[in-house]
Amino acid sequence: MKSPKSFRLHIGLFGQRNVGKSSLLNALTSQEVSIVSDIAGTTTDPVEKPMELLPLGPVLFIDTAGVDDEGALGQQRIRKTRAVIDRTDLAIVVSNAEVWGPFEEKLVEQFRERDVPVLVVFNKTDLYPMRSCMQNSLAGEKLKTVETSATTGAGIAALREAILKSAPDDFINRPAIVNDLVGPGEMAMLVVPIDKEAPKGRLILPQVQSIRDLLDGDSFCMVVKERELREGLRRLNTPPKLVVTDSQAFLKVAADTPPEIPLTSFSILFARHQGDLAEMVRGAMAIDQLQAGDKVLIAEACSHHPIGEDIGTVKIPRWLTQYVGGKLEIDSARGRDFPDNISDYKLIIHCGACMWNRREMLSRIMKARQLNIPITNYGLTIAYSLGIFERALQPFPGALEVYREALRKRAAKG
Amino acid sequence: MKSPKSFRLHIGLFGQRNVGKSSLLNALTSQEVSIVSDIAGTTTDPVEKPMELLPLGPVLFIDTAGVDDEGALGQQRIRKTRAVIDRTDLAIVVSNAEVWGPFEEKLVEQFRERDVPVLVVFNKTDLYPMRSCMQNSLAGEKLKTVETSATTGAGIAALREAILKSAPDDFINRPAIVNDLVGPGEMAMLVVPIDKEAPKGRLILPQVQSIRDLLDGDSFCMVVKERELREGLRRLNTPPKLVVTDSQAFLKVAADTPPEIPLTSFSILFARHQGDLAEMVRGAMAIDQLQAGDKVLIAEACSHHPIGEDIGTVKIPRWLTQYVGGKLEIDSARGRDFPDNISDYKLIIHCGACMWNRREMLSRIMKARQLNIPITNYGLTIAYSLGIFERALQPFPGALEVYREALRKRAAKG
Repeated sequence: MKSPKSFRLHIGLFGQRNVGKSSLLNALTSQEVSIVSDIAGTTTDPVEKPMELLPLGPVLFIDTAGVDDEGALGQQRIRKTRAVIDRTDLAIVVSNAEVWGPFEEKLVEQFRERDVPVLVVFNKTDLYPMRSCMQNSLAGEKLKTVETSATTGAGIAALREAILKSAPDDFINRPAIVNDLVGPGEMAMLVVPIDKEAPKGRLILPQVQSIRDLLDGDSFCMVVKERELREGLRRLNTPPKLVVTDSQAFLKVAADTPPEIPLTSFSILFARHQGDLAEMVRGAMAIDQLQAGDKVLIAEACSHHPIGEDIGTVKIPRWLTQYVGGKLEIDSARGRDFPDNISDYKLIIHCGACMWNRREMLSRIMKARQLNIPITNYGLTIAYSLGIFERALQPFPGALEVYREALRKRAAKG
Repeated sequence: MKSPKSFRLHIGLFGQRNVGKSSLLNALTSQEVSIVSDIAGTTTDPVEKPMELLPLGPVLFIDTAGVDDEGALGQQRIRKTRAVIDRTDLAIVVSNAEVWGPFEEKLVEQFRERDVPVLVVFNKTDLYPMRSCMQNSLAGEKLKTVETSATTGAGIAALREAILKSAPDDFINRPAIVNDLVGPGEMAMLVVPIDKEAPKGRLILPQVQSIRDLLDGDSFCMVVKERELREGLRRLNTPPKLVVTDSQAFLKVAADTPPEIPLTSFSILFARHQGDLAEMVRGAMAIDQLQAGDKVLIAEACSHHPIGEDIGTVKIPRWLTQYVGGKLEIDSARGRDFPDNISDYKLIIHCGACMWNRREMLSRIMKARQLNIPITNYGLTIAYSLGIFERALQPFPGALEVYREALRKRAAKG
């Protein structure tokens, strides 16, 4: 899915020549989908590099030329660099322990005046290690610093985490939950089963947020229990653009929804909205690789009386055990208490994290990804277990392709 | 509207003969709609008196014969009285300072064992004043006591308040918000405008509660903004049973809703659910009697950043002032800080109190009623001001009749 340039987080890379801006960029993106295109520029023009920076999504790196020249050509460069400063959402000032000085301090000052978040990267730490007096002085100025070596790869994960933490909210939090799939003046059908877990007199947050999101997008919706879905559909003279159901009613809803109407679940919407759908699709498919004795982590964002308590503590463990045909070692994590060491887990299954901001969920996804541990959510696990994964992913071509690609790979392996 | 017997709060009146049970009942009901019927019984049979006890609504008083007899006829009476104890939701043990003793204490004990709330009324305080040692001893036992004189009327308001406070939740909190007006398998249309006051990413509580209430009643709904209402209606091949709108969009929604479809507002639903619709209809009509210089109290249940802040503090005061054509003295009350002395007000306008339980709202309505001060809510005030009162009351025959009766009285006065 292409993102228009304006939706991408603009990350400006600044610094003197030869501090390693380009090699840093390569190190950040080496594991990635790769740079989509390089927009060619003259030697004085900043180079724009649109790319997918996981776990953040589409970003635009603006690689400025070195901005330390003072000559005639330098003056022109400085002017162009100033123009980049003005459209930077997040600034990375690259330097090293040898050259750090007034030039960098002035750059940082300019971003602070503009309220633009700024990260200082001390690169080439293999050649120029940081001195503690310098670290203390920077800490005193409350500068966010990361030490990296593009050559050895040290600090690259920390830089990625710092970018995630510093990115402005607007780029982290996706505006749409569902209205981009429905469209203005169009209708969605929301299926909301009321079981004993449903809190009295309320709807759960993802349901409320979905209704509100549809209204915000000039869409509207019909809200039914699964038993009234057929009657609801019968009342309409134009089919809904999309049916969204609670994962637990998936089979009944799939049976009652004509195949030409796209169908998905609140969990899948929130895997996309709060996390990363493609990553979680990959995660759900890793269930097939589980073996008896494997360690699985089930993580719940709410620390007290979560809505999905018996889903996370009873239903999913029971189903996984049956599926694997042997005992799994299942750990639980609650609230902010996510284990520091997750390297032993073969799979992490997270709740929808509807109470959290996306930044927090992306941070966990990133940690799992760095260790190559599959991560998914409750709803995707349920959808996968029910065998309706493909239908539920239909509205999301990118995620569907991830699924099909994985199936093709398996088939090729035999 | 008739209430089936089982929905009425069963209030058992117990006590020795001649403590004044009947006169107490008459005092409680003298201002009321009157006793609907007396079910005749033999001298030993308890007498059932169904009535409207404001502000509670339909109750069934069960007036037991004196239960102090010890003879043959007495044994039979005691047996029948025991049967009454078993179906009592709230017990009132009537006594006085002269006769209080082991008989009453044993009665109280029986209710406590059954977890039935019990009030002890010391009647005839004009003849038998309470002694402080007795009051202390009863307070030590944590007995809820009220001192009354049915003859002078003293304590009757306090007894009414104590009944309201002690009645079990199930009788105070009405189960239905809207689903009784829609019916199983039927549809309501909910109109939810999204303006700058709407909290980001959410729906306000009355809207969520209404959707949930419809699902609980096996009904379903379509949720639209006011601009999409026509399109929503156009999509349906069967009209909705009811359209419910936010009061602020009333005129547009009334224009876009065919006249044969019943229409009301969330505020009116909540005047009924959380308070007393008929009382609040009378209250709204009192706006016509306001004159420049009158004192008006605007009461908001939320103490911090209420949703309807500018409705209560700006819109309604402005509109009232214009309507009256002169300055009003408008006071504001927030949260639990309801003024002790409300006797100077000519009108009380309350928010929908969606965050409260009904008991609390009824208690305020009762206080206003005792002083004959009209009380209404924001939404009814807006509906009245927009001139769509009659249409908005159509789904509620009882409240509509209150409105029409008041109009007839005014017309008769000339």
